[in-house]
Amino acid sequence: MSQYQPSDHLEDLPKAECLRLLEDGSLGRIGAVVRGHPVIFPVNYVAFDGAIVFCTRRGGELETAASNTTVAFEIDGVDNIYHEGWSVLAIGRCIHVTDPVELDQIQDSRLSSWAGRGRDLLVRISMDEISGRRIRHHTP
Amino acid sequence: MSQYQPSDHLEDLPKAECLRLLEDGSLGRIGAVVRGHPVIFPVNYVAFDGAIVFCTRRGGELETAASNTTVAFEIDGVDNIYHEGWSVLAIGRCIHVTDPVELDQIQDSRLSSWAGRGRDLLVRISMDEISGRRIRHHTP
Repeated sequence: MSQYQPSDHLEDLPKAECLRLLEDGSLGRIGAVVRGHPVIFPVNYVAFDGAIVFCTRRGGELETAASNTTVAFEIDGVDNIYHEGWSVLAIGRCIHVTDPVELDQIQDSRLSSWAGRGRDLLVRISMDEISGRRIRHHTP
Repeated sequence: MSQYQPSDHLEDLPKAECLRLLEDGSLGRIGAVVRGHPVIFPVNYVAFDGAIVFCTRRGGELETAASNTTVAFEIDGVDNIYHEGWSVLAIGRCIHVTDPVELDQIQDSRLSSWAGRGRDLLVRISMDEISGRRIRHHTP
């Protein structure tokens, strides 16, 4: 991930900071490929045991797009007043969660889908690559 | 785009509402494919003349990922108190803007990159498909 050139305003985030931001978040976006084209799906998630976990509907487009394949997962935050912001990108493989112990542990977490009922398939994204950046224009 | 099943909480947004939300926004996310894997790039943008326009750095990863190819473009907004939110997804082809008249028109718009200097390549995404959804739990 090197689209950015060095800049006074742009800094790479250490991995620990990326993980902290992921653990603090609850809404992210999955980048996948559907019928040969990129698609982005917003999802509620939890960062759980070193991975991203989200729930989706069995048979839905996201399940199909995220079945045993590599996806991108992105979160970001902005400060519109200062034109500042940060983003974290994880790349990893999607695996359906079927182990009963792991399912119980995740059910105990704060994972929920704002979209409501019917999203009973849990999917885990490993974090094979993780990177993050922050744009800063003023001194905190 | 049919990952969602019908729900009391979930509604499709009319195209006119999707376009209004795109015109109101300034930060979106591009879903593309890099080295065979999905990637998501946050970008500043303007909705201009029926298309999305963003700027990037010549030779950067985003330019390579978005050269004359189909990408996804997503914006969203959330209300954390009510667990509500909306998202708009456009799918379209990326074309570098080289026409001097069009370049002048875009330069007059409010497009800027928070990441700063060096992002002097303008890219236009056509909106070949556009869809949007809103999650609502309470009556406005």
